[in-house]
Amino acid sequence: MKKQTDKNAVREIKSVKIVGSFISDHFGELWDKSLNDLIKEAVFGVLKNVSKDGDFDPKEIEAVYIANMASGIFNNQLHLNAVVSELFEHFPPSIRVEGACASGSLAMITAQDALNSGRYKTVMVLGVEKMTDFNSNEATKVLSSASDYNFEYGSTFPALYALLAKAHMHKYGTTREQLSAVSVKNHAHALTNSKAHFNKLFTLEQVSQSSMVADPLRLLDCSPVSDGSSAVILSTKDSGKLLDGKTVNYKNKPKIIGMGHAQDFLSLANRKSLTSLNATIKAAKDAFKQAGLTSKDIEVAEVHDCFTIAEILAIEDLGFFKKGTGGQATLDGQTTFGGKVLINPSGGLKACGHPVGATGVKQVAYLAELLENGIKVKTDRSKKIMNFKYALAHNVGGSGATVVVHILEK
Amino acid sequence: MKKQTDKNAVREIKSVKIVGSFISDHFGELWDKSLNDLIKEAVFGVLKNVSKDGDFDPKEIEAVYIANMASGIFNNQLHLNAVVSELFEHFPPSIRVEGACASGSLAMITAQDALNSGRYKTVMVLGVEKMTDFNSNEATKVLSSASDYNFEYGSTFPALYALLAKAHMHKYGTTREQLSAVSVKNHAHALTNSKAHFNKLFTLEQVSQSSMVADPLRLLDCSPVSDGSSAVILSTKDSGKLLDGKTVNYKNKPKIIGMGHAQDFLSLANRKSLTSLNATIKAAKDAFKQAGLTSKDIEVAEVHDCFTIAEILAIEDLGFFKKGTGGQATLDGQTTFGGKVLINPSGGLKACGHPVGATGVKQVAYLAELLENGIKVKTDRSKKIMNFKYALAHNVGGSGATVVVHILEK
Repeated sequence: MKKQTDKNAVREIKSVKIVGSFISDHFGELWDKSLNDLIKEAVFGVLKNVSKDGDFDPKEIEAVYIANMASGIFNNQLHLNAVVSELFEHFPPSIRVEGACASGSLAMITAQDALNSGRYKTVMVLGVEKMTDFNSNEATKVLSSASDYNFEYGSTFPALYALLAKAHMHKYGTTREQLSAVSVKNHAHALTNSKAHFNKLFTLEQVSQSSMVADPLRLLDCSPVSDGSSAVILSTKDSGKLLDGKTVNYKNKPKIIGMGHAQDFLSLANRKSLTSLNATIKAAKDAFKQAGLTSKDIEVAEVHDCFTIAEILAIEDLGFFKKGTGGQATLDGQTTFGGKVLINPSGGLKACGHPVGATGVKQVAYLAELLENGIKVKTDRSKKIMNFKYALAHNVGGSGATVVVHILEK
Repeated sequence: MKKQTDKNAVREIKSVKIVGSFISDHFGELWDKSLNDLIKEAVFGVLKNVSKDGDFDPKEIEAVYIANMASGIFNNQLHLNAVVSELFEHFPPSIRVEGACASGSLAMITAQDALNSGRYKTVMVLGVEKMTDFNSNEATKVLSSASDYNFEYGSTFPALYALLAKAHMHKYGTTREQLSAVSVKNHAHALTNSKAHFNKLFTLEQVSQSSMVADPLRLLDCSPVSDGSSAVILSTKDSGKLLDGKTVNYKNKPKIIGMGHAQDFLSLANRKSLTSLNATIKAAKDAFKQAGLTSKDIEVAEVHDCFTIAEILAIEDLGFFKKGTGGQATLDGQTTFGGKVLINPSGGLKACGHPVGATGVKQVAYLAELLENGIKVKTDRSKKIMNFKYALAHNVGGSGATVVVHILEK
């Protein structure tokens, strides 16, 4: 039920339409693709995905926002905005945004602001990360630059999230089996997603007995180091042009109806709580208020499950489940098809993959596609299409210092 | 003379006031200051600089935009937005922007868009780079990630700008002495600026005979590797609050009245011309149109003189001097006090220093201060204050693939 929005409490943001979306084929260890290849794939891929009637006119794109965390280190290439602009004949102005693993959703916000200012009417947001030219130990070290170098250096992200997991297990009795249930469910979901890094089912036992990374987190609790790119085209117009001059109507395109962006201390040591991400709670509150919705209205969400414990924190902090009950709810099947709320149908970061800069854009791209076309679900005898009205994307930087929540409407 | 703006040609942008500005004391090799120290210095410094009557209320700052090029490499710290947010009790939402040496002006644009969208009314823009923990050879290698890794890798920026210098000398007869005149003038200007990296006069001969870096560019043609930070507070409000509850009126604060942002090919090999930066020409055209001004109206400008040739290109491409005559104009004293247009009174990147992420913000901070208070100039017997009505900031990424021009009004 859509409620009356309190306009005074959260400033109004005009709704922006997602008129095209794309995820690179596929996320994974893409040794045959360079950073530039992945950028090109997303730019030209999303231009094809606006309409079934033909390619979108690239000149409609007035600016590009590119999300990436660490191409300066992984690929010796900074200044990525210039890399993407020169793919267009008209060289649209472009800006790169970084906020660790939240880079994608922060780029979304900068694009939304430019649209809402009236300066542009149609823009592209592109996320990319090409990580596997480094070995994964080195990649883990690069990623640790998203934590507090002065106070946490030496802690990898598995170690930081292991602390959060331990605290949650201690306070709420969250179990090893419940953590594993997140991974099992997300790997099962990834089977429905041709873009996923992994396409393999695991059992609770296999996850619980996978090799230890940082106690209690094991290999199958951790999202992988992936390559990939993603893009969306956002517009405040009612229609756009295809290359052949035809018009594409945006009437039935999904909209962004709510957004929240909140920050917390960078280092875990300074946080008020280790069993909640306060920035998720604040960002969600703002996003729901703006959308005039509550967590009960959301039928499907992509949440930031960089580790299994992160999904449990997210589904509690977003208000889908009472604090401390997220693990059991997952084990009970409440976050998969037929449950209370469908969490990470793409497979999430865990099984769809986590090319860092691409992740926040991919969440929105995946959900936009889902709202537009529904998702095919196998029943005993046939396939049926599930449709959704509202969807939520939840993107986290570091161990929770930056959180962005977007709410989409069909 | 302010002309009628063509509203249809360039979309209108509401004017944003620069209500506070700060440059770290000073730019240079600051071995006693860390990246975090420089960020803190800028945040608390700019809060002090809004009013002489007391400190600005930090809660007025609704969001922070931070510009930085390569802290992930120089300082093992990405996710800088979180580093800056936690300095405020209310954790304002924050975003980091990168576009090589144009990071600062791109962060300005993201902030302006957020203000113009109506989402925020007062925000902070902060630029920082802490480079000297690396030795300068390594820093030069890091900076080369702003060029095209696939096509130019191995070329340092002195080498790329040396190509531009050679082309300009070949086509227009620009001389060694004219290049030196840029450096001599900017070092002289830096003597008026207590924040400058260098405070030393050089002669034409000293510059022309300094050690060779990349023919024809010599050591004193090149901007230094500097540490530093800078910040501005931007607002669309008419007044703000000080910590003690007093009101500060923004009536006489300088305004941003024009902005242009343009892109070109990343690699020099693809460019149409080596004797102009086309992105400067495009960005300036848009900025002037928006401001309803022409280059003739501008009395003072901070331009991107990463190398002496870059200033000559800039003053021609911005329309201050006819193409090919910028070198001679500089030698003739047309770009210093008493000349046609005052270029780089701060000393520019060459002599004030070039802490990359800070530079674009520093240009605006310096000019805002100049518009508000004028600049003290020594005459034979006394000091007089020169005042200005319009000022221009010109910030370049890489060898010209990204250019932003801002026009300010007193």
